[in-house]
Amino acid sequence: MHELRKDPLLNRWVAVQFDSKPPEYYNFEEENEKEHSCILCAGREKETPSEITAIRNKGSQPNDSGWLARVIPNPNPILRIEGDLGRRGIGMYDKMNSIGANEIIVETPEHDKRPEDMGLEQMVRVVTLYKERVADLEKDSRLRYALIYKNSGKEAGAVYTHSHSQIIATPIIPMRVKDELDGAKKYYAYKERCIFCDMMREELRYGDRVIFETKNFIAFCPYVPRFSFEFWILPKRHSCAFQEIYAEELEDFGLMILSMIKKLRSVLKNTPYNYIIHTAPNRIPRRDHWHTLGEDFHWHVEVAPRLMRISGFEWGTGFYVVTTSPEDAAKYLREA
Amino acid sequence: MHELRKDPLLNRWVAVQFDSKPPEYYNFEEENEKEHSCILCAGREKETPSEITAIRNKGSQPNDSGWLARVIPNPNPILRIEGDLGRRGIGMYDKMNSIGANEIIVETPEHDKRPEDMGLEQMVRVVTLYKERVADLEKDSRLRYALIYKNSGKEAGAVYTHSHSQIIATPIIPMRVKDELDGAKKYYAYKERCIFCDMMREELRYGDRVIFETKNFIAFCPYVPRFSFEFWILPKRHSCAFQEIYAEELEDFGLMILSMIKKLRSVLKNTPYNYIIHTAPNRIPRRDHWHTLGEDFHWHVEVAPRLMRISGFEWGTGFYVVTTSPEDAAKYLREA
Repeated sequence: MHELRKDPLLNRWVAVQFDSKPPEYYNFEEENEKEHSCILCAGREKETPSEITAIRNKGSQPNDSGWLARVIPNPNPILRIEGDLGRRGIGMYDKMNSIGANEIIVETPEHDKRPEDMGLEQMVRVVTLYKERVADLEKDSRLRYALIYKNSGKEAGAVYTHSHSQIIATPIIPMRVKDELDGAKKYYAYKERCIFCDMMREELRYGDRVIFETKNFIAFCPYVPRFSFEFWILPKRHSCAFQEIYAEELEDFGLMILSMIKKLRSVLKNTPYNYIIHTAPNRIPRRDHWHTLGEDFHWHVEVAPRLMRISGFEWGTGFYVVTTSPEDAAKYLREA
Repeated sequence: MHELRKDPLLNRWVAVQFDSKPPEYYNFEEENEKEHSCILCAGREKETPSEITAIRNKGSQPNDSGWLARVIPNPNPILRIEGDLGRRGIGMYDKMNSIGANEIIVETPEHDKRPEDMGLEQMVRVVTLYKERVADLEKDSRLRYALIYKNSGKEAGAVYTHSHSQIIATPIIPMRVKDELDGAKKYYAYKERCIFCDMMREELRYGDRVIFETKNFIAFCPYVPRFSFEFWILPKRHSCAFQEIYAEELEDFGLMILSMIKKLRSVLKNTPYNYIIHTAPNRIPRRDHWHTLGEDFHWHVEVAPRLMRISGFEWGTGFYVVTTSPEDAAKYLREA
C-alpha cells in the first residue's frame, strides 16, 4: 500500500509504500571481484596522471609513495580543463566545448580498505581534500559548479573497486542542481526562511525519520526519498557552501560520514550506493546573480543505496517508486 | 573527446563523445533465465486478476484461453483505481492517496515469443490495445496522465520475462513529463511553431541522425540523447495525443515499432531497453488548462537501450554522459 508524497523542492511526487519490505527482501550481491591491476594503489603513482594534491607523510615527494590520501586527474575525463567554452549554435540546437574538471580522490593507499573500515583520522583526511578541491575549483571563472560524489560498487557506476570519490566541475549548473536551487529560492521567496532549516526543525520535532546526530550535523531520511533507504546529512549551522565549513566542523563531518556508512553497511550489507555533496554554485565570478543564495540554499549530502533497478517508468516520468518508507528505513538505520 | 549539447526541451546539458565507441565495446549480458511459473502464459488466465480487455479468437471467452493479446490489472499495483485523492498537508509537507491505474499488456500468449519475432499482425494488436487503454483511462476525471511503457530485460526493470508492456495512469502530471510539456510550450510561445515538427524538419534536412522512415513515422537519434543509442519515433502528422492516431496510421505504427526493435536487437543484441510513449496529459476534464496543447505538443516514443549503469554523478545532476554520439548510433541502426 502506497501514498503519494510531493517533494517540496522539486515538485516531484513519489509513491511511498506503507507496508514496507524489510531489508532482507533485497538481494545483496557479493562483490567478490578483485582488481589485480589497480593504478590507484600505493606504488603505482607514476602510472597515473600527475597528482593535483595529496596528504602525505612528512618527507615524501609528490607522485611518489608515502601518501595517505591523494587527488589525481581522472585518466579518462569527460571534461577537459584546457580551452574556452566556445558556446555556439548549430541549426536549431546549441552546444559548447566540454570544459571542466574531472578528478579522482583516492581515499586510501590500500586496495582493500573500505570506507567503513578506514577510521576517523583517515575519513577526516578525505573530507579535508573534498573541501580543498572545491575551494580551489571555485576560482576558475569558466566553471559554474563543482560536484563531489562517490560511486561505491559496480551497480552504482564505480569504475574502480579501490575506495575513491570523484569531483566533476562543470561550465553549467546541472539541471537537477538548478531545479533544487530554484525550489529553495521559491520557498524562501514565499516563507522568508530556508527550506532546509525548516525541514531540519520539522524532522527534529517529528523524530521518526531522524537517524543520527552529532554536534554539528544531523542525518535523516527525507519525507520524499527517490530511493529506498535514501538519507540526507545536513549541517545544523545554516550555510550555502560546503567549502565554507569551519575547521572545527570538519572532523565532526568525517565522523558523521563514517558513522552513516557503517550503519548503511550494517543494514544493507554490500548494496552499492552513491553519495553526493549538494553545495551552492560557484559564486565568485557571479556574485550578483546569486545574491540571495547565502540565505535560501543550505549545503547537504544525499546518500542513495541502489537497491532496485530504475525502470522505464521512472526515467520516463521522474515519478519514483520507493518500496521502504523513510520512517521504516530510518528505524532500521537508527538501530544499526 | 566530448562536446556539450543542450536539450532544447528540458534545458539539460549532455556531454556527447566524438570518438564514439562501437557497439562491440558494450557488454551484452545473456538472458538465459527461464520462468517456470509464468502467470502471463496462455492457460493460466484464472491466476491473474480479471482481464480488462483482450483481442481474442472468435468464440473464446474472457478470462479463458483463446486470446491473442490481453490487458490485466497489475497483480502488484503501485496505484489503486478505487477511492478519492484526499489531497492534504502533513506538517510542512503535502500528500494524497495513491489513486491511479496499473495495467499489464500481455503481448503474446507464448512465453518465449519476443517482440522482434512477433510479426506485424501481432504487433498491430499490441499497439491497438495501447490506443484503446489510453483512450479509456483518459475518461477518468481523477487521472491526469496515462503512460505506456515497456521494460525489456531485468536490468531495464522488467519483472516478467514474458513479453509485456505496462500502463500507469497517475493523478498528477509526472515531473519529467511536465518539464517536457513546459519546454515545448516555451518554444511555441517564442517561435509559434511546434518544437517537434521543427526537430523533424531539422533532422530530415541534416540526415545524419535519421534511422528509418515509414509512410507516417520517422525514427531518429535525438541531437541530445541521455542514453547511448537512444532514439525517438515521431508521427509525421502533428498531433498531441497518441490515442488520436488514425486507424490507417496504426498498422504503420506497428511496422515502425517492430522494425526498430529488430534493428536494436541486431546492433545491440540482448541489451535491456525501455520505451515510453510520451503523449499529452488527459485533456477531457481540463480542457481550459491545456488550451494551446493541441499546437505545442507532439506525441512520440522514446526508446532507451540500457547499456551503461547510471552513476551517482548522473542522478545527482541530471547531467548525463553518452559514450556513442547520436550520429554514429543512427548510422549503426540505419545500416542494420
